[in-house]
Amino acid sequence: MAERIVKIGLVGFGTVGCGVAKLISEEADSIVAKTGLRLELGCVVDTDTESARPVKLPDGVLTDDIDRLLNDDTIQIGVELVGGTDAAKEIQLKMLRAGKDVVTANKALLAEHGNELYKAAQQNDRCIAFEASCAGGIPIVSAIRTGLAANNINAMYGIVNGTCNYILSNMTSQDQDFSQALTKAQQKGYAEADPTLDISGGDSAHKLAILASIAFGCEITLDDIFVEGIEAISKNDIRYGGEMGYCLKLLAIGQKDAQDKVSLRVHPSFIAKDSALARVDGPFNAISIFGNAVGQVMYYGRGAGMMPSASAVVADIIDVALGNSATTFQHLHLRPRNEVEPLIVKIGDTVSRFYIRLMAKDQPGVVACYGKVLGDNQISISGALQHEGSGPDNTVPVVIITHQTQQKNMSAALAELEKLDVFSGKPVCIRIVDIPEDKEG
Amino acid sequence: MAERIVKIGLVGFGTVGCGVAKLISEEADSIVAKTGLRLELGCVVDTDTESARPVKLPDGVLTDDIDRLLNDDTIQIGVELVGGTDAAKEIQLKMLRAGKDVVTANKALLAEHGNELYKAAQQNDRCIAFEASCAGGIPIVSAIRTGLAANNINAMYGIVNGTCNYILSNMTSQDQDFSQALTKAQQKGYAEADPTLDISGGDSAHKLAILASIAFGCEITLDDIFVEGIEAISKNDIRYGGEMGYCLKLLAIGQKDAQDKVSLRVHPSFIAKDSALARVDGPFNAISIFGNAVGQVMYYGRGAGMMPSASAVVADIIDVALGNSATTFQHLHLRPRNEVEPLIVKIGDTVSRFYIRLMAKDQPGVVACYGKVLGDNQISISGALQHEGSGPDNTVPVVIITHQTQQKNMSAALAELEKLDVFSGKPVCIRIVDIPEDKEG
Repeated sequence: MAERIVKIGLVGFGTVGCGVAKLISEEADSIVAKTGLRLELGCVVDTDTESARPVKLPDGVLTDDIDRLLNDDTIQIGVELVGGTDAAKEIQLKMLRAGKDVVTANKALLAEHGNELYKAAQQNDRCIAFEASCAGGIPIVSAIRTGLAANNINAMYGIVNGTCNYILSNMTSQDQDFSQALTKAQQKGYAEADPTLDISGGDSAHKLAILASIAFGCEITLDDIFVEGIEAISKNDIRYGGEMGYCLKLLAIGQKDAQDKVSLRVHPSFIAKDSALARVDGPFNAISIFGNAVGQVMYYGRGAGMMPSASAVVADIIDVALGNSATTFQHLHLRPRNEVEPLIVKIGDTVSRFYIRLMAKDQPGVVACYGKVLGDNQISISGALQHEGSGPDNTVPVVIITHQTQQKNMSAALAELEKLDVFSGKPVCIRIVDIPEDKEG
Repeated sequence: MAERIVKIGLVGFGTVGCGVAKLISEEADSIVAKTGLRLELGCVVDTDTESARPVKLPDGVLTDDIDRLLNDDTIQIGVELVGGTDAAKEIQLKMLRAGKDVVTANKALLAEHGNELYKAAQQNDRCIAFEASCAGGIPIVSAIRTGLAANNINAMYGIVNGTCNYILSNMTSQDQDFSQALTKAQQKGYAEADPTLDISGGDSAHKLAILASIAFGCEITLDDIFVEGIEAISKNDIRYGGEMGYCLKLLAIGQKDAQDKVSLRVHPSFIAKDSALARVDGPFNAISIFGNAVGQVMYYGRGAGMMPSASAVVADIIDVALGNSATTFQHLHLRPRNEVEPLIVKIGDTVSRFYIRLMAKDQPGVVACYGKVLGDNQISISGALQHEGSGPDNTVPVVIITHQTQQKNMSAALAELEKLDVFSGKPVCIRIVDIPEDKEG
């Protein structure tokens, strides 16, 4: 079969950019065999044209002039790997206006300005492909948009940030403090020097915004997502939860109820130790999706890194070049905000079980105290455990597991508990997420 | 956006056929929103037009006359869900010649006559989509062909037969005999009245032939695949292996070495209890794939059943109607037999660790006996355990774990061991598969 040359312009020659250049060069023949396409880098644009990189480009390909990409009509596809939101958005808009299809891994940009970019693409009769933006090596965007297209998706539960999962895995298995685990993650290259976006849950929220919008077919903004990070997690709570059968993960959760109301949140979550997601360790990502026809499916793989992300970018390049992305992109029909806004469930109205840890002073009446506060707020207790071993000021940890209750009841109870003299400090509260494992047997 | 009507002809109105009809009717509006396509059943062909089914068709749609489908030019896509190989092949060929694209879940047919059908499709400028043929609800065919297209796939390890996995899971967790577990599987609807194709490993081999041919880009026939079923597995070996840290699964394995030599086999496999596939229980399927760029990815979900399979069929219908299947199908470039045949690794040349169980008579010299036979065949022992508790004729089970060795050495050793007086009966030999888990941390 005759091969067709597809010329690509790459903007951003960092880690993932180098991976893309490497794959395009090393897998060229195999990609021709599988797809009939010969991928070629027309130019690679980066402000830094001097630093040594782990991949060698043909002479003259690397440039700091984006106009070379924009004005080269033989370049069909522009790949934006700059990251960030301001410059990257301008670059994508310029590429679309210059008639290029766009491939990107930029989750922050899509989560914040996706709709504007999608509209610009449609106006220019171009498409934007963004598989690499979510969960790197896992082809999750295409799974939702094509493989599960016949399904009404009811829920997704994802471990979509490898940095947080690496930190929590180490806190769990090595009994490390948060700060120790973070330092180790930074040493291993799993966390940035400034880890804020990851550990705050912000990065997971970006991915949830993208995945939930395509899974539920509505425009999701970051404001719709409740976000809590892992910065305040203590290894003691991981241990106490572990004793009660739970494993702590930072989950990105999207749920749609029978009335089509959507609940979106990112927060530390205790999940049953025998659930599939509990076994996802270290820098790996995994996403469980529940479809009305297919039941539970789970996808597992590396969520980041040079080559896994490059694999997703090149898969998108191929999909765009074959014309498949254009047809799916055309139908990226997201119901507009004004229709969807009332359908977002507020965090106070979500229902969950809770793990609470109080530091009780060694005096009578502790149980009666928390029992009354929880009872007054319509919260019933399913288990409690007073741990031996003392905290600061001779306090002892009291761990309580509640039955299901609304978040707003819990927030009210926590505020009251904090005021009580019999407890020291702020109560710790972690949501318990019951993933409805699809099991039979 | 304007909607486009896509008319479908369905042949075979059994379980999956009913699921497809149900999805097409119940998800019609949601599919329009996601894809712009309004799927409609032009006709449903089945020799049985009388029996009650769990789904209601519009009047006049059900017929026993396939010519109605073939002669209806408004029908674009023919879905073959008849099963079996003879009649089904004729039906697919007729549909292709009549200008219909084909969607099928028929793994046996594709594994045996795929190449002939693919050629017929290409001659008629049509495509065949077959996501539902492998691992039902898991979009694994599209994952390999699109999501992982930039990867050189080195290996795949799959639990692709839910019947066998259900039986082995029950033998493991409930300490059931094979026959008890099979009966339970039949009662639960997870095994057919005649379970031969499943328990013999034949069905897994069909799926491996399809998946390996697209993953490795070469024509695979069933003769290339070594197949051993689970009929002879004893619950004692599952228990003994469990004591040594292994879990028994029927795996479909495809590996490609650095010289592009391909090894294909389906057999009971002891895998490490903490490996991801060890945790796949009951009727579920899972496939781990190793790509050179992406590392390890794993897909998990229901491998069969009315709605999971229907979900895959309808996803294929959508993909065909959008034209995406045509472009990927065009590049289903499988290197022909004459080039590939010498590249298949013969089973005797494959290397593995082994679990051996011998029933030793209670007399001196047992260890020296097996030690000599294994040593003479260049097999070294990594662990051995003589179990208490007696078998028939006052024998005791001796379990041996070997280091890596070639299958032909092991076969020679087993033949010698069988002849020795000191052991009773045939030695049990189960391969230990070391899945190279991609772990870091």
